[in-house]
Amino acid sequence: MRTHSAPRFGHLSPADLSLFTDQYELTMMRGYREAEHTPKSTFSLFFRSLPTNRGYVIAAGLEQAIAYVQDLTFGADQLAHLRDEGFPEAFLEYLAAFEFTGDIRAVPEGTAVFPNEPLLEVTAPIDQAQLFETLLLNQIGFQSLIATKAARMRDVVRRRGDDQQLVDFGGRRAHGTDAGLKAARAAYVGGVDGTANEAAGSIFEVPVYGTMAHSWVQSFPSERAAFETFVDVYGEEAVLLIDTYDTVAGAETAVAVADERGVDVRGVRLDSGDLAALSQEVRNVLPERMDVFVSSGVDEFFLRSFFEDDGVADGFGPGTSLTTSDDAPTLNPVYKLVAAEENGEMQPSMKLSEGKVTYPGAKRVHRFGEETFQRDVLAGADEAIGGRGLLVDVVTNGDVVYEFPTLDESRERTLATLERLPRDVRAIEDPAAYPVEVSEGLESTAERVRSELRAEMGL
Amino acid sequence: MRTHSAPRFGHLSPADLSLFTDQYELTMMRGYREAEHTPKSTFSLFFRSLPTNRGYVIAAGLEQAIAYVQDLTFGADQLAHLRDEGFPEAFLEYLAAFEFTGDIRAVPEGTAVFPNEPLLEVTAPIDQAQLFETLLLNQIGFQSLIATKAARMRDVVRRRGDDQQLVDFGGRRAHGTDAGLKAARAAYVGGVDGTANEAAGSIFEVPVYGTMAHSWVQSFPSERAAFETFVDVYGEEAVLLIDTYDTVAGAETAVAVADERGVDVRGVRLDSGDLAALSQEVRNVLPERMDVFVSSGVDEFFLRSFFEDDGVADGFGPGTSLTTSDDAPTLNPVYKLVAAEENGEMQPSMKLSEGKVTYPGAKRVHRFGEETFQRDVLAGADEAIGGRGLLVDVVTNGDVVYEFPTLDESRERTLATLERLPRDVRAIEDPAAYPVEVSEGLESTAERVRSELRAEMGL
Repeated sequence: MRTHSAPRFGHLSPADLSLFTDQYELTMMRGYREAEHTPKSTFSLFFRSLPTNRGYVIAAGLEQAIAYVQDLTFGADQLAHLRDEGFPEAFLEYLAAFEFTGDIRAVPEGTAVFPNEPLLEVTAPIDQAQLFETLLLNQIGFQSLIATKAARMRDVVRRRGDDQQLVDFGGRRAHGTDAGLKAARAAYVGGVDGTANEAAGSIFEVPVYGTMAHSWVQSFPSERAAFETFVDVYGEEAVLLIDTYDTVAGAETAVAVADERGVDVRGVRLDSGDLAALSQEVRNVLPERMDVFVSSGVDEFFLRSFFEDDGVADGFGPGTSLTTSDDAPTLNPVYKLVAAEENGEMQPSMKLSEGKVTYPGAKRVHRFGEETFQRDVLAGADEAIGGRGLLVDVVTNGDVVYEFPTLDESRERTLATLERLPRDVRAIEDPAAYPVEVSEGLESTAERVRSELRAEMGL
Repeated sequence: MRTHSAPRFGHLSPADLSLFTDQYELTMMRGYREAEHTPKSTFSLFFRSLPTNRGYVIAAGLEQAIAYVQDLTFGADQLAHLRDEGFPEAFLEYLAAFEFTGDIRAVPEGTAVFPNEPLLEVTAPIDQAQLFETLLLNQIGFQSLIATKAARMRDVVRRRGDDQQLVDFGGRRAHGTDAGLKAARAAYVGGVDGTANEAAGSIFEVPVYGTMAHSWVQSFPSERAAFETFVDVYGEEAVLLIDTYDTVAGAETAVAVADERGVDVRGVRLDSGDLAALSQEVRNVLPERMDVFVSSGVDEFFLRSFFEDDGVADGFGPGTSLTTSDDAPTLNPVYKLVAAEENGEMQPSMKLSEGKVTYPGAKRVHRFGEETFQRDVLAGADEAIGGRGLLVDVVTNGDVVYEFPTLDESRERTLATLERLPRDVRAIEDPAAYPVEVSEGLESTAERVRSELRAEMGL
């Protein structure tokens, strides 16, 4: 182990991303190459069951998944690392020239998906498709988790509130920097209005918002002096944090300072205490033109209670709960081999592992219902079932053939999706199960493959 | 909003890290500068309560926190973004020349910490110290969360098992790429033996391990052919995944292939079913020289049950649960102003927000107890209490004065810490509370500041 004194942040460069993979992906790739066993294969990315209290999942992260596949390059440092790990030169030369030549189909970001439905399918020589497992699961799994959490909050605010502003405040509690950045992006896709995170504003053009912290107030001799100084710098843009000492007294001070300076201060923020009750008291103190923003512990359950308790607010700043999806911090997505070429034909494949069975073959998802979604049918990719197919061609023969939507377009897709999902499927606790049927064709394929495997295994 | 078709991954460059901050940090910085109000201030990074079922937290992430502070640079792209957001030129010039000139004290990685104890304190002009809030909380909060989760698993494996190997398999379920990378690092600090993640091996020199996936087995005409090919490529290094179709039959096939090829295959991996029961059956099938590795749903609670049920294994691959700390996915750390200079002296500061009170002033943590830790005393930085002080000088006047330990040294510190923590504090469910006393001096300072504030506010 190295000794060192200079601290290192541990940046992942674009080339380092080629190593964001489990060792076994590379071990298998090398094995496939050395055994000259590189059949064309289809891998399907899906989840087996919905996280707790989730009736649906909003797909997100496709853009990052495809950027990774397109830009994947093993640089000299990465190859040197793999050489140190014992990978042979012939394999390193292959990696140095790596280029994806296959196909990817996927559901657009902002689409509602359900258990066993592919969010994405990769068809390519198995050595290529294998490599992507770790990163695709990491990016699509996390962003879909956060887009879903955001959609739940947006839905509560639309149904019970007044479609108030929602801003991601969670960068500080996100799991690392990529999570902070991608959560801001995914939450926007999921229906929030913006983020506090400047990097997300700079890199993904998510709208950025901000107020002030307790430290500002504490650093001045009095709360009044703190408010006066802030209003002198920011004028009508100022949002004053009023709970450092006493929330209602803070609101009175905010009004007094606005009057004294003759400035139409934008609003105040509450960050502690009984927020529904305090918001009413504060609302009574403030002139109508001033807005009330609420933060601290905001999630979909808080929002429901806040409105039930007649809380009054113009905006909310969900933080930890949004960027960690704290009540359900993983989607547990998987990336499974579902078909491989044998004698020139794609043969459906599955495993029999207890509790982890996968439907075989490349698939289609057919969605039925116009104004309201009624049911989905999961079918083989070659079955004609009707309904709207959810998966679209994204990469063909290694080239991107998909016009990526803007973030705003993906966000609009989420908002339209929420409108069409049955109301009981959108419940934030104990939601109803949305019907996903398996086509007769797919069931019979699964039965046939299962029987064949069991016969081969002598089970 | 831009329209685009080329997908973008969204890499955070080293310069982009300067924008990994909440907008309000920059808004306040600008305000402090324009108001010429930049008192020397101390901010303290701590958590208010332990996450569910946690009796202690293992501090981690200090190296990344300090690297960030040392390397922080606003580049042309970042300044252009802030210009677009309306920040004035004078402030942008100040950012372009930004350099940290203050002091940082912190507890070394691998130290056990408790509620209200500072993991890190920054003392600097307030405009400098304010900027760091988001990133320091993000990195130290996440890595401490994961080091703690890892330490809990290591502790169960040492107490109930045979100190078996633990390897992080969670990169695919981590919240983004930085989380995968830093979780591998933090888990190693917390006591696991390595990771599957190649990037963590390359960047942080965490030992890397790997086996094979179900897709390898499925892609061959039979499990036996799959095992034969893998053993032909990897020989004695091969670890064969045996649960694709039937775990015990898979173990028998693994033994048959090892015999047929005359190779001392290293071992097998089980990934589904009743793992304790299956591990016993598999152990009976395998020759003694072959190891059994267990993955799927591994966390500290699984490990306890596995050993209670007489499961037999040589190693475990915790995944999702390790890299997301799924039963407690946030430490909820805060970064609070605790002192600010007034009339040439550092004055203790606190807020009174309901449920969010902070002890005022820069602090020391004194730990008492030799073989076993007995209690901590939280005191003002200038109080002489005895015991061992936990915080060390890391940065003084902007220069790093700390010899950063290697990862192995930090890991050793964690393992030694676990030995010395009272056993009931280490319980993985309903742990006993470790005694943290507040010194009389600190209590009376808090009382004085609280009274003064309440008097000023007329409360």
